[in-house]
Amino acid sequence: MKRVKLMVAYDGTNYCGWQVQPNGVSVAGMLNRHLSELLNEDIYVLGASRTDAGVHARGNVAVFDTAARMPADRISYALNARLPEDIRIQDSREVPPDFHPRFAKTRKTYEYKIWNRRFPEPCSRLYSLFYHWNLDVERMRRGAAYLVGTHDFTSFCTSKPEVTNRVRTIYSLEILAPEYDNQKSDLPVCSAQGEVMEHAGGRYENGVGMITVRICGNGFLYNMVRIIVGTLLKVGGGMMEPEEVQTILEAKDRSLAGDTAQAHGLTLVGIEYGQYESDKFNDK
Amino acid sequence: MKRVKLMVAYDGTNYCGWQVQPNGVSVAGMLNRHLSELLNEDIYVLGASRTDAGVHARGNVAVFDTAARMPADRISYALNARLPEDIRIQDSREVPPDFHPRFAKTRKTYEYKIWNRRFPEPCSRLYSLFYHWNLDVERMRRGAAYLVGTHDFTSFCTSKPEVTNRVRTIYSLEILAPEYDNQKSDLPVCSAQGEVMEHAGGRYENGVGMITVRICGNGFLYNMVRIIVGTLLKVGGGMMEPEEVQTILEAKDRSLAGDTAQAHGLTLVGIEYGQYESDKFNDK
Repeated sequence: MKRVKLMVAYDGTNYCGWQVQPNGVSVAGMLNRHLSELLNEDIYVLGASRTDAGVHARGNVAVFDTAARMPADRISYALNARLPEDIRIQDSREVPPDFHPRFAKTRKTYEYKIWNRRFPEPCSRLYSLFYHWNLDVERMRRGAAYLVGTHDFTSFCTSKPEVTNRVRTIYSLEILAPEYDNQKSDLPVCSAQGEVMEHAGGRYENGVGMITVRICGNGFLYNMVRIIVGTLLKVGGGMMEPEEVQTILEAKDRSLAGDTAQAHGLTLVGIEYGQYESDKFNDK
Repeated sequence: MKRVKLMVAYDGTNYCGWQVQPNGVSVAGMLNRHLSELLNEDIYVLGASRTDAGVHARGNVAVFDTAARMPADRISYALNARLPEDIRIQDSREVPPDFHPRFAKTRKTYEYKIWNRRFPEPCSRLYSLFYHWNLDVERMRRGAAYLVGTHDFTSFCTSKPEVTNRVRTIYSLEILAPEYDNQKSDLPVCSAQGEVMEHAGGRYENGVGMITVRICGNGFLYNMVRIIVGTLLKVGGGMMEPEEVQTILEAKDRSLAGDTAQAHGLTLVGIEYGQYESDKFNDK
């Protein structure tokens, strides 16, 4: 018997989420089915992060136990040959039998992408939130700064009765906006013949293009990243002051924060397991 | 009667290309159909770049003439409300009646994306070529340098009998590889508990992640960008020396260059119309 750890990437568009559901095709369900066929035994994977419907991953982690003789590092190749192309194992390796993807000390990184223009961009429509209104990146950065550190994030989660400890640590929360930071982009502009060339600040006449909210922490409560993003959108859009983020945090009241931003903008980038400081959470 | 110029973005995955075809749904066909319904007259758009099946665009350009009274800048909104979400007008405006998207002096920019890792990444599978073998970015850059400037690109196109002038000017040809250039990426790495943290150079144990071949020129022959990319893949993979690109260029022999890289990695980024030097091409 050995324990195998998978690093799993997926396009969440066509799944009901990570977790097996009675109705709907889940990522874990696909892995269970194809691993069971491949290894000829009943396999049930345990995932590090039970992402919601529509959320994507570049590096979710799952473990399972098997008596099969196939070397752990070959399972990635064999499994990828069976899986649909919207799920791809990036790595498979044997881990100690006591390795548990959810209880180990972890450092998780998520990215939430916001496409801020006058109109949506078709090739990023499935992987970013389209946001039409003007966003002030500096305000978003000032608001985000209040969230970094160790706090009770009750105001920034959808409550689950079994989760009583809502203290988490955010190591970093970056608002990446390359077009904004470069002032102008080097993207060419379509203009009528003879018109003065413009550059991308005015390319679609408003918006700063792609904004990536990149957040790294020791763990995240239910919907926490999406509620943080929904709140920063209010700050960036001028409906809330950056300083109010501090007030909301202290109030421990979900109703004060912004909406839960849509799932399809969110990607679980990766999970590190190591010597990071962390609590034992109560969210099983 | 007025002439309207559209800036059109699309995800080419589900189209047979720009051009109307007897069998298959084309981008131009979708525009003709929805513009005709919207403006209540028969509309036929003329596109600047007749992209192939599977090729994407952020800024293709199309023009059409209409007697409709709707202001040109409102057509983008009205048309987007009718189009499927994989086509989005980014801008609509009136242009002079003699504006012609293909004969005007232009500067076109294309990007070709290559995902260079051990395994594909699901969320970029439709917008980049998956290339499994190791690529040497420096070699690709050295090979690319021979193509910049004004040359006869006969070796780098699929010949069309009606195109007799195969001289084009490439203003720039960049090989963007941020992970390679940063030496290491700041992407977190999944490793078993207690393992030393790695960074992304070794994240999937090979590959340099996303490589973007960005090419800007006064015009491109049929399949030219894709054949250039196919050739640079040979150079990067060690099957061809960078200096051979010069030899191939001089030989004016298509059979010496690399394969035509797959369509889905290619995106037409944008077209500038202006005072750029350019020939009148013979490719109608």
